[in-house]
Amino acid sequence: MTPTAPDRHTVSARISPRGGLDILSRDEVIRLRDASSGGLHELLRRCALAVLTSGSQSDDPRAAQERYPDFDIQVLQQDRGIKLELKNAPAVAFVDGEIIHGVAEQLFSVVRDIVYTAIEVKRGDRFDLGTSEGLTSAVFEILRNAHALRTNVEPSLVVCWGGHSISRNEYEYTKHVGYEMGLRDLDICTGCGPGAMKGPMKGATIAHAKQRRVGGRYIGITEPGIIAAESPNPIVNELVIMPDIEKRLEAFVRLGHGIVIFPGGVGTAEEILYLLGILLHPANEGLKYPLVLTGPAGSKEYFEQIDAFLRLSLGDEVAQHYRIIVEDPAEVARTMARGMRHVRQRRLEQKDAFFFNWSLHIDHPFQQPFAPTHANMAGLDLHREQPMHTLAADLRRAFSGIVAGNVKEEGMREVEAHGPYEISGDPAIMQALDKLLESFVAQRRMKISGEYKPCYRVVTG
Amino acid sequence: MTPTAPDRHTVSARISPRGGLDILSRDEVIRLRDASSGGLHELLRRCALAVLTSGSQSDDPRAAQERYPDFDIQVLQQDRGIKLELKNAPAVAFVDGEIIHGVAEQLFSVVRDIVYTAIEVKRGDRFDLGTSEGLTSAVFEILRNAHALRTNVEPSLVVCWGGHSISRNEYEYTKHVGYEMGLRDLDICTGCGPGAMKGPMKGATIAHAKQRRVGGRYIGITEPGIIAAESPNPIVNELVIMPDIEKRLEAFVRLGHGIVIFPGGVGTAEEILYLLGILLHPANEGLKYPLVLTGPAGSKEYFEQIDAFLRLSLGDEVAQHYRIIVEDPAEVARTMARGMRHVRQRRLEQKDAFFFNWSLHIDHPFQQPFAPTHANMAGLDLHREQPMHTLAADLRRAFSGIVAGNVKEEGMREVEAHGPYEISGDPAIMQALDKLLESFVAQRRMKISGEYKPCYRVVTG
Amino acid sequence: MTPTAPDRHTVSARISPRGGLDILSRDEVIRLRDASSGGLHELLRRCALAVLTSGSQSDDPRAAQERYPDFDIQVLQQDRGIKLELKNAPAVAFVDGEIIHGVAEQLFSVVRDIVYTAIEVKRGDRFDLGTSEGLTSAVFEILRNAHALRTNVEPSLVVCWGGHSISRNEYEYTKHVGYEMGLRDLDICTGCGPGAMKGPMKGATIAHAKQRRVGGRYIGITEPGIIAAESPNPIVNELVIMPDIEKRLEAFVRLGHGIVIFPGGVGTAEEILYLLGILLHPANEGLKYPLVLTGPAGSKEYFEQIDAFLRLSLGDEVAQHYRIIVEDPAEVARTMARGMRHVRQRRLEQKDAFFFNWSLHIDHPFQQPFAPTHANMAGLDLHREQPMHTLAADLRRAFSGIVAGNVKEEGMREVEAHGPYEISGDPAIMQALDKLLESFVAQRRMKISGEYKPCYRVVTG
Amino acid sequence: MTPTAPDRHTVSARISPRGGLDILSRDEVIRLRDASSGGLHELLRRCALAVLTSGSQSDDPRAAQERYPDFDIQVLQQDRGIKLELKNAPAVAFVDGEIIHGVAEQLFSVVRDIVYTAIEVKRGDRFDLGTSEGLTSAVFEILRNAHALRTNVEPSLVVCWGGHSISRNEYEYTKHVGYEMGLRDLDICTGCGPGAMKGPMKGATIAHAKQRRVGGRYIGITEPGIIAAESPNPIVNELVIMPDIEKRLEAFVRLGHGIVIFPGGVGTAEEILYLLGILLHPANEGLKYPLVLTGPAGSKEYFEQIDAFLRLSLGDEVAQHYRIIVEDPAEVARTMARGMRHVRQRRLEQKDAFFFNWSLHIDHPFQQPFAPTHANMAGLDLHREQPMHTLAADLRRAFSGIVAGNVKEEGMREVEAHGPYEISGDPAIMQALDKLLESFVAQRRMKISGEYKPCYRVVTG
Repeated sequence: MTPTAPDRHTVSARISPRGGLDILSRDEVIRLRDASSGGLHELLRRCALAVLTSGSQSDDPRAAQERYPDFDIQVLQQDRGIKLELKNAPAVAFVDGEIIHGVAEQLFSVVRDIVYTAIEVKRGDRFDLGTSEGLTSAVFEILRNAHALRTNVEPSLVVCWGGHSISRNEYEYTKHVGYEMGLRDLDICTGCGPGAMKGPMKGATIAHAKQRRVGGRYIGITEPGIIAAESPNPIVNELVIMPDIEKRLEAFVRLGHGIVIFPGGVGTAEEILYLLGILLHPANEGLKYPLVLTGPAGSKEYFEQIDAFLRLSLGDEVAQHYRIIVEDPAEVARTMARGMRHVRQRRLEQKDAFFFNWSLHIDHPFQQPFAPTHANMAGLDLHREQPMHTLAADLRRAFSGIVAGNVKEEGMREVEAHGPYEISGDPAIMQALDKLLESFVAQRRMKISGEYKPCYRVVTG
Repeated sequence: MTPTAPDRHTVSARISPRGGLDILSRDEVIRLRDASSGGLHELLRRCALAVLTSGSQSDDPRAAQERYPDFDIQVLQQDRGIKLELKNAPAVAFVDGEIIHGVAEQLFSVVRDIVYTAIEVKRGDRFDLGTSEGLTSAVFEILRNAHALRTNVEPSLVVCWGGHSISRNEYEYTKHVGYEMGLRDLDICTGCGPGAMKGPMKGATIAHAKQRRVGGRYIGITEPGIIAAESPNPIVNELVIMPDIEKRLEAFVRLGHGIVIFPGGVGTAEEILYLLGILLHPANEGLKYPLVLTGPAGSKEYFEQIDAFLRLSLGDEVAQHYRIIVEDPAEVARTMARGMRHVRQRRLEQKDAFFFNWSLHIDHPFQQPFAPTHANMAGLDLHREQPMHTLAADLRRAFSGIVAGNVKEEGMREVEAHGPYEISGDPAIMQALDKLLESFVAQRRMKISGEYKPCYRVVTG
Repeated sequence: MTPTAPDRHTVSARISPRGGLDILSRDEVIRLRDASSGGLHELLRRCALAVLTSGSQSDDPRAAQERYPDFDIQVLQQDRGIKLELKNAPAVAFVDGEIIHGVAEQLFSVVRDIVYTAIEVKRGDRFDLGTSEGLTSAVFEILRNAHALRTNVEPSLVVCWGGHSISRNEYEYTKHVGYEMGLRDLDICTGCGPGAMKGPMKGATIAHAKQRRVGGRYIGITEPGIIAAESPNPIVNELVIMPDIEKRLEAFVRLGHGIVIFPGGVGTAEEILYLLGILLHPANEGLKYPLVLTGPAGSKEYFEQIDAFLRLSLGDEVAQHYRIIVEDPAEVARTMARGMRHVRQRRLEQKDAFFFNWSLHIDHPFQQPFAPTHANMAGLDLHREQPMHTLAADLRRAFSGIVAGNVKEEGMREVEAHGPYEISGDPAIMQALDKLLESFVAQRRMKISGEYKPCYRVVTG
Repeated sequence: MTPTAPDRHTVSARISPRGGLDILSRDEVIRLRDASSGGLHELLRRCALAVLTSGSQSDDPRAAQERYPDFDIQVLQQDRGIKLELKNAPAVAFVDGEIIHGVAEQLFSVVRDIVYTAIEVKRGDRFDLGTSEGLTSAVFEILRNAHALRTNVEPSLVVCWGGHSISRNEYEYTKHVGYEMGLRDLDICTGCGPGAMKGPMKGATIAHAKQRRVGGRYIGITEPGIIAAESPNPIVNELVIMPDIEKRLEAFVRLGHGIVIFPGGVGTAEEILYLLGILLHPANEGLKYPLVLTGPAGSKEYFEQIDAFLRLSLGDEVAQHYRIIVEDPAEVARTMARGMRHVRQRRLEQKDAFFFNWSLHIDHPFQQPFAPTHANMAGLDLHREQPMHTLAADLRRAFSGIVAGNVKEEGMREVEAHGPYEISGDPAIMQALDKLLESFVAQRRMKISGEYKPCYRVVTG
């Protein structure tokens, strides 16, 4: 449902703060104002524009940057607190000159998270970001500051991952799964944006209405590099902007009580490896973490190929950590609902919180970005003679690097300059990896010009 | 969004009562049980099945009657009150054996209204149904008993009328209008069923979510003869079953604060004449009743033709009672929002209730059915030399009769047996009427086999 | 806490309706207006004045009648519904010209119940008041109409009975018991007025505040003959005016989940006999009905004497229906809290409602007034050779008659005219009765001039 | 209302956290546990015991320290967060082994504020406590952390000051004023403890119940040195423990929207001087700050004497900042209600927050303790030839010092050791001061053994 307001119409307005930014000290007001007019201004402007154009007919916020070149946002200081001043903002976010409430909420979420991150996480000495504990603390604090941690709420949050540009058929399927989960009082958390990030929320919204469920949660977790490309859909009633990709991933797995993975592209496959790398870690043995890979009948092959690759490289035992369900939304939802009960039981036994998965062990490397340099790639060890979780970790990195070498500017430049990456690995694993990537290209899940050609060679070591 | 549960699967269950039927006296329990097992049982069964299949993939509840021949519903007496016993009910209304909350609510609305009507309205001597006042009182009591009358609520209820089987384009337009109205905090009341009855509710739901509006009202008003063909969509969170078509129409105009009419067929045209017949009555002068006829660009002709017919037969002054807006959902919503403010002001001045339009005068004939017999048709007076509101009333009846003579079994049989109706009317008006009906046939808004042929002749009198 | 507004100051004002009287049909408005200006007017005026002076420094509403001779109340008809017009109303009910919310609520309760009783109970043919079932239905309907029946509420309502003019020490004790019950999340229902009717509510209010309990219920059930003498204290947040003493008693025992009886006078003793007459009935065997008689150490004798009388006349088994607790508020509260759990369990097993004790059997005679004529008294049978519950019933009547013969105008006149009542009874029982009454006189619980002299003689039959 | 549980009975229990301490990071849990078992433990234990004995029959918490020598409190670490472990706690805080909810809330308020102060205010470098701005920020943060700052709430908070050991008559008067303020929807903030700190809350509670006002605020602001002597009464539903007397005073004047001062002793007089010292500051010109001094007829003299002293020393203009109302609770309440409207208007005009009085200028000296040494006293300047606000500030200090020299151990020792204080001041002012203190002694508002004898001499300078 999208309004037809002519696209370039703009509105200028002052917006009063909502939840969280309404009781500020004088110091905070000053810091907010300074931050928003200083180094953070461009970041704030870009993210705000993404929110303001969400739900518009063109879903591409990059186009928005061109369409609204005069848009600006300022944090105004007032004795009573702050106001946001919007100049030449997209008219689509307004009704008769009044900003839509949900959009205003998302706007203040943007300000809140960007400024909190800048002041409390990056600048201060509050967190020791060199340690795993420090990073987890930062994730916790950002989520708490965003009021995303709630007490007295039973485990019900299902994280949905999958591709943004999926087929119509796959999109309808994600809606259907969301609907069946909503009927079972489950809440949805995704990464914002279209496709598999939007479908489950839409489905759950209808189901929650049918079940007369109030207070349903539709959480969107994004980060500054992504929000501009995948603006939050209007259903999202809790928006969190994490500082970077790794903290965003950690927020997903510690906040959610279970994960459903829909078909996607290489990014989705990488996320699966990230997750298995964590779940396979010995410290996480016994942990309850419901994980379902699912798609419509037509997408069966996608998960079969991933399953085959995982079993071949990590052994058949890996499959006990996930369940593949094809074309059965109700069964997906039932599996998740059942999983929630197990999670609940486990957390009670462990006296762990429902609202944040403290017990989950995440190795330090998983909390850090992987740069696809030749040195880093050469350092990977893709042989089977090692613990599954370290192999999974290096597989994820290899996967990440190879994808970069094929389709990302940074990686392609590296490969052009220094030749193919040299990877030390088990030939069988490497071949399986090749095959998997080829199939992605064939299914048009990986955008590549011409034929797929490996950007690496195996070094027997 | 519809579940894929195989269509003939059934569930048997006992359902506990909700709102309104949860505090019953022993007498009421007995009367309820008796009524539901006696003469009302078939009516109850049919309406219940319509509710239980709402939102299923096939929207046709008549098919449902065939698909669930073993379905049964009984009211069980228990010391604490009642329970509904469902046998072989469509599985689509259940989630893992539990009935969907919204469906259960609608089910109890059905029981409530059918039994209330049977006991309090039809049997008792509580209402003098021979008078206009008595009929209005009955409408009031049924609505109050259904908790549809709410105090401390500002005027915000827009009744939407229009066709059920409209084009995709027209359907999308109704959604869009509903969306724009929802953004302006307006609530929706329709007649249940698909098409123009469903679109505005869907649109408003999304908009209310965006505006973070809780407690949005999606009222469906139906009657036993229609519910089976047009089952309530799941968005409806207040369902009322009025005893017959006339009381349903009165409920619409007294409960709603404004009306939006979308393209439809002859039924919609008849509703327009009903409404104008009321608004033109001298007793209603000065009344505020926002009325908009609207459709997408492609449906412009429909309203132009109706407008032309109305002006020709009732004079140009009639047009001050409505506004035609083409392809501008936001303007429709703005007009309604503005209208609500006028209604509010007027009601305050007149010390009239917001929740029920007592001041509206409705002539007794408008509260009664019109049987399309030759005698009744001959009794109509379609000349211009009379007050506009009586002409409008007879026009509505003529319209109703002619449509019956063309497409309804009862009327066609009459015409076949006794020849064309003889109507005493102004030739210009009659020709305009012909032209209008022809255009409906051409636009496929009136299902007729072969060419349209008038089923009446004008008698100069 | 009472305001010092000079006592004869008055305010005239129009009051808008609250809960229940805010959605009226035109008929109802007319009936309300007619009723309030017709035969009911004086009743309405008197009860309204009692409410308006509640909480004033002088608690005697009869004085109020003299102090506010010009007070009047009218129900005004308005299109939107009704308003109450107060003329020369006690200023104590207002703050800067605005009526206190709680007082306005009680005022509308008065109008609601008086008019409902007049229209629905007394005039109509809705209830067959000649049968036990009909009377119970009337009690149910009046309570339902007053919104006193609530679903989804656990058994928690303790009825407190006892004297109005008790000693300071006894009053403090009732507060203390109310406090301990409030700490255990119990709600209070009394008969309005001062003394044992007020203390438990005050105590519970403080305890509910300490326990942060919102929505605590303080129900006052009164009747037109009593309200003028015992005006509802301001804590009462649900006021119900039953039509007469017997329906008031039935409302207490069917609405409450347990009963605590504090020291009082002869009226309290009569209430104990009423209650035991019901609980001893074979049809009520197995029923859970927690009943505690309690008072401070200084009032121990009162209950010892009643206990002795009951055991002597009805046998020791009678004592299993009550528990006497002296000077231990916490134990009283614990006993009630435990009793609530048994009631809950029993109701669930019997599928009976929590909000109305349908299962309780009340014999027809208990639902009717007893006139203390010589013929009626002579008809009593106070011998032991009969079922306990019929003996208890006649004991209650004898008690009632003897009290009337000693202290009530009507009874004293009878005795003066026709000599002492002749009662056919067991001499031992009659002597015990004498002794009990003497002790009441000695404890100043029965106001009598001069020495107590039996107003009856025993006829051996 | 106080339970009779035998006084030395104790209960040991684990208490789950409420509001604010229920979402803690692992770091916070560790810091809390460490703090509570380290240097803060004794402070925590003492304050907790004061809360646990609040409302007990003996209101003296110091006695409690002796009565419960084995009482201990520990913060337990659990994965899910913390629990409080109470050992040998007073049974009066429990009902059948369960802690009373309100007591538990106050207990967690104690933990919250003591730990917050220790970690964030005292230890860290978050606030520059050497500057006025830094101190105000600390006050703001402590109040915000205690959730005492609320948005979307109209100005309604009246701070009540006055003596703890006032006469019965004066206590009843404070209740009455609280009652009249409660009727006008005003909230109450006091310093905890008995007397004038408790009466207004009790009165307002009854009035709020009568007005059916939910969410009434009864804020108690105390500090560690006082709480043990003046434990929070159970009505307090928001308890804040400020770190010291000066921050507590600042919290009062920035949080409250108006102040009512009841009769008290020398402490109350000192508070009046503190307040006038602030209001007289040129920077606060134009500020709206409703201030009423009030008492029953019998206490008229107290305020007359203070008024006379103020006018003599500070000039008649000082009287425009306060209003003296004798024996008229309704007028006090009306004055405050009117004042709230002015405050509201002013804050809107100044775009200042309703929840914290940022605009109020408080000079740095007012934020710091005054030690009554001879050097400090000699440094005071009590001549009229200076701005009123600096004279008021020095008067307050002189007052404080003289009181210390007469009745406080520290001051008396100083005077004994070094002779009377030498004060440079205007003889007329000093004589008036003498006279005022004498009258306090005469009215038994200042506990002194023997006759009052000035502990200072005036140095003409």
